[in-house]
Amino acid sequence: MLFDKVAIIGVGLIGSSLARVIRHNHLAKVITGFDNNPEYLCKAKEIGVIDEAFESAAGAAADADLVVLATPVGAYGAISAEIVSVMKKGAVITDVGSVKKYAAAEIEKHIPSESGIVYVPGHPVAGTEKSGPEAGFLELFEGRWCILTPGKFATPEATAKVSAMWQAAKMKIDTMTPEHHDKVMAAVSHLPHLIAFSIVGTVADLEGYEKQEIIKYSASGFRDFTRIAGSDPTMWRDILLNNKETILELIQRFVEDLIALQRNIRWDEGDRLFELFSRTQKIRKEVIEAKQDQPETEKKILAELSRENSLDK
Amino acid sequence: MLFDKVAIIGVGLIGSSLARVIRHNHLAKVITGFDNNPEYLCKAKEIGVIDEAFESAAGAAADADLVVLATPVGAYGAISAEIVSVMKKGAVITDVGSVKKYAAAEIEKHIPSESGIVYVPGHPVAGTEKSGPEAGFLELFEGRWCILTPGKFATPEATAKVSAMWQAAKMKIDTMTPEHHDKVMAAVSHLPHLIAFSIVGTVADLEGYEKQEIIKYSASGFRDFTRIAGSDPTMWRDILLNNKETILELIQRFVEDLIALQRNIRWDEGDRLFELFSRTQKIRKEVIEAKQDQPETEKKILAELSRENSLDK
Repeated sequence: MLFDKVAIIGVGLIGSSLARVIRHNHLAKVITGFDNNPEYLCKAKEIGVIDEAFESAAGAAADADLVVLATPVGAYGAISAEIVSVMKKGAVITDVGSVKKYAAAEIEKHIPSESGIVYVPGHPVAGTEKSGPEAGFLELFEGRWCILTPGKFATPEATAKVSAMWQAAKMKIDTMTPEHHDKVMAAVSHLPHLIAFSIVGTVADLEGYEKQEIIKYSASGFRDFTRIAGSDPTMWRDILLNNKETILELIQRFVEDLIALQRNIRWDEGDRLFELFSRTQKIRKEVIEAKQDQPETEKKILAELSRENSLDK
Repeated sequence: MLFDKVAIIGVGLIGSSLARVIRHNHLAKVITGFDNNPEYLCKAKEIGVIDEAFESAAGAAADADLVVLATPVGAYGAISAEIVSVMKKGAVITDVGSVKKYAAAEIEKHIPSESGIVYVPGHPVAGTEKSGPEAGFLELFEGRWCILTPGKFATPEATAKVSAMWQAAKMKIDTMTPEHHDKVMAAVSHLPHLIAFSIVGTVADLEGYEKQEIIKYSASGFRDFTRIAGSDPTMWRDILLNNKETILELIQRFVEDLIALQRNIRWDEGDRLFELFSRTQKIRKEVIEAKQDQPETEKKILAELSRENSLDK
């Protein structure tokens, strides 16, 4: 068994999905949990995602071999400050945060150098727009990439164990610096989310439009943006404020390109539009070829159906 | 039976899905088809979506009671010019175009006033990013809205028949002016698509980034935009150029809001971000409550599975 006791701090979508992976693959004897949302915590215990629910992060983390921070990154500092004093020597902290420079700084500043506590920063690049322990599912991570950005508090042994855990979740593992991680994620995740939040706000606020019509006909495109813009507000506030420089630069770049496109439309430059749209269609094909196209929500439906079918038989 | 002969001009995603609906519900004795892409046309015949394939739109439309234009709207003018002379008196043209003012103008200018040809403009608000006859499926339209914008060449009888056809596809019907249609669609469909094309272009072009990394980690948000930006380039060029005024105005509005958001991030105004993201999350809930949330691609998977299951039994 990889661990005796694993503590999951934050039993939402990611935390509860990971707990399911740990349970399913017998990676730990006991899974403890904490969440500052009491409903989430009760539900996670009730549906058996965790064995024991605690009223504090320190309670859940005491005596754990592995503590997984799966809360919004803005809470990492306070949680780390609370748990390091109760954690045993040699125990490992890992996290699932989408900004790694800030996450590492917040956690590492609370690790006393003589404590023997090990920190392996991680980011499983998977998710849905849904929140809470019931939104989680075993197959969430399958076929996706998990990025590890080990820093000064990581050891090869601990990194290997965290890596093994994510491999049990059927993830592929990459290792890079936190700086590189944040730069890439700004482009593939943070900017797209920001744009989705922004456009949903713009469209919902348009005067002279009936809100009901916007909702009614949303299947024509708007719907897909509301999905992304339905993601957890706290989590995204924390991400955007803590990868600020790169994101601000990318917004600038995006606006430049959009204005160019606006000009193409104004001047009837159909060829320029066609050229861009053909290029983006090719990029879509590359995403499909890399097997990154299937939405996690689809994976969930298929997984549930296949479980039902195997129960039938 | 609603029609004797229906001609489908353009046997791609929408045309071939509608043909499946007509076949499944016995709405016509014969379905003829034409497509300027010979591969699509052969495939549609081969998989039995149409009964007869023609080498010209006029060939397919001759003697039809109903001609459905399901090509990119930019082709409507030329096709209408070609088919009106062979169409029989009292026959009906309908279309599925996403811009209704332009579509109607292009078609109506070719209808001789003494011809007795009836035109019922329509827009089934449903679709996926996929193209071609094999991408179509029977359930594509289920639960979505079909907007009719009958103009001077429509009759109540023909409008009722076209309406009955879309109801057989399990669509709900709305009627409005082309102007209102185009205004609403600019907000819920055209702007979102344009933004998706734009951001996929921006991210793919970023220098200092490895393309491979962008694709690899695309499941973190970018992936969803590539899906929308994988839609047919010709179709979208035609839409954006032919609903220009409203779209240009909305781009302006969107950029304003985005710049405000950029400023919130720069000045660490987390509360403003949280407030917006909470609001967009609420809008997502409204989309779910209106049952417009399920992606058509998910509907396709479920429909196929349920067909397989019923074959098993």
